[in-house]
Amino acid sequence: MAECLLLDKSNVKEFLDSFDTILTDCDGVLWESAAEYPIPGVPETIEQLKKLGKKVFYVSNNSTKTRAEYVVKCKKMQYEATEEEIVGCAYTTAQYIKHTLGYEGKVYIIGSSGIAGEFDAEGIQHFGVGKDEWNGRGLRDLLDIQIDPQVKCVVVGFDLHFNYVKLFTAHQYLSDPGCAFIATNTDSALGGGIFPATGPIVSAVECSTGRKATVCGKPQEPLGDILVQQHGIDPKRTVMIGDRLDTDMALAHNCGMKGLLVLTGFAQLEDVRYLAASNSTAHQKQIPHYYLPNLADLGKLITKIGLV
Amino acid sequence: MAECLLLDKSNVKEFLDSFDTILTDCDGVLWESAAEYPIPGVPETIEQLKKLGKKVFYVSNNSTKTRAEYVVKCKKMQYEATEEEIVGCAYTTAQYIKHTLGYEGKVYIIGSSGIAGEFDAEGIQHFGVGKDEWNGRGLRDLLDIQIDPQVKCVVVGFDLHFNYVKLFTAHQYLSDPGCAFIATNTDSALGGGIFPATGPIVSAVECSTGRKATVCGKPQEPLGDILVQQHGIDPKRTVMIGDRLDTDMALAHNCGMKGLLVLTGFAQLEDVRYLAASNSTAHQKQIPHYYLPNLADLGKLITKIGLV
Ligand SMILES: [Mg+2]
Ligand SMILES: [Mg+2]
Repeated sequence: MAECLLLDKSNVKEFLDSFDTILTDCDGVLWESAAEYPIPGVPETIEQLKKLGKKVFYVSNNSTKTRAEYVVKCKKMQYEATEEEIVGCAYTTAQYIKHTLGYEGKVYIIGSSGIAGEFDAEGIQHFGVGKDEWNGRGLRDLLDIQIDPQVKCVVVGFDLHFNYVKLFTAHQYLSDPGCAFIATNTDSALGGGIFPATGPIVSAVECSTGRKATVCGKPQEPLGDILVQQHGIDPKRTVMIGDRLDTDMALAHNCGMKGLLVLTGFAQLEDVRYLAASNSTAHQKQIPHYYLPNLADLGKLITKIGLV
Repeated sequence: MAECLLLDKSNVKEFLDSFDTILTDCDGVLWESAAEYPIPGVPETIEQLKKLGKKVFYVSNNSTKTRAEYVVKCKKMQYEATEEEIVGCAYTTAQYIKHTLGYEGKVYIIGSSGIAGEFDAEGIQHFGVGKDEWNGRGLRDLLDIQIDPQVKCVVVGFDLHFNYVKLFTAHQYLSDPGCAFIATNTDSALGGGIFPATGPIVSAVECSTGRKATVCGKPQEPLGDILVQQHGIDPKRTVMIGDRLDTDMALAHNCGMKGLLVLTGFAQLEDVRYLAASNSTAHQKQIPHYYLPNLADLGKLITKIGLV
């Protein structure tokens, strides 16, 4: 694993000098999945990094919260974030539709109030969030469902109320090749692997329609583009900190940033070894540049070398 | 397209002499998707083939009907079939669980009464069919759902009541690597492409669990194995007639049978040309050996050469 370096006293100064901007994943880095409190020492580390002049963005693939709601969540977890510092995939999806696509019509959403809130903030018309129960008897009764001809965009995010009716509705809109197909993210599971996440829902729609969604969350380029265009970051001077290889570290590679893996969440070192031993380009593009057992260790190193 | 021959007067005798058994798909071959009547001339063609001593099986990836229900459907469509001649994927799934796996525990089903009926016929314990609504508020409330420790097998088929709760329940059982994961079939869409079919549901469960289902319908080998073991067919002396390349024609290749494509359903000749031009092995293994515009044309050829 020559490519993935443990950060230590010998290389931390060079590492810190190599970036101005930090993108940090939240769940598994700043706090543990179901926890009510932060990972000890990590809030202090974030403060140290800010004192060193680093700009911090909180980058999450959780589409169920608006940025305003995420600020509240961060505060509860002892991280002082502003809305501008929160980059959730519901937000990046709204930005993509509004500014990249320049789409002005209605959006059919499979997803939650987090997406609805970010769309409202951008003045994007939408419907679909919430329960959509159906009491027909057979398949043919589904054809009674009204289709809105103004919808030329379908967004798929995490939805506890996902069901066959929503799948059918998305399938109907997407049978028009002119209808855009966007996913907030494609994480396979959440909550430490206990719950199916957005990926399975996206897979279902992709399979039925034979189409591929444009993904606005980690690890895809649209997220990086929005950070460059709207927030002026320089990918070459940016480090992505995360606990997942397939989203966080892949984002770093896809956008030309450095990746720092922490082992307080999903991925472990053996997963990195597995990638390093693989011949697949996709696997190679998930290998972190650096790793640390815990982000709090970065704070300790900063103190040790006497920077803050 | 040297590989895919139009059946005509010059080669039909040789074709007819090359098989004793016919597997025929139903929807798109014997009748059209939403039709109330058969494709004209096809019931008579099936009768001619039987008079020539050919054994006919009706092979369908529709998991919503039991064999008994399919006999009724066939009769309505002017095909005289017995239960023994019906090979639906709900039936092959029950056979696979009972005889191939030798599994004797309970099965959690995402699917419909067609699967339940075939499982009842084999004495396989099961639950899950029907609505499974959930009125919790958040993700964590899902953890209240009771998991049955006797379940070591999950079956996924077509389910109008598929929803996040069912996805979560399947995900929970399948997080045990000792729990078998079986799909009745993986068709992406049905009803001429209007409705999402079983494939999207299977995709969702595969994505969340990171596992691949064993598929008991077309085009996978378990179906062929059951026809060999339980019905004594000889694949080398069998022709599969169908309207789909990815299920019907792929089954012929996977099981060492001949494939005859008819153009009264899903696939058209340009789809065959697309496969023929592709370098992918998976595509090559979907190219029909023969084609006909309509299965009724086979009846006409049989009459023309004076066989029946
Ligand atoms: Mg994480
Ligand atoms: Mg068919």
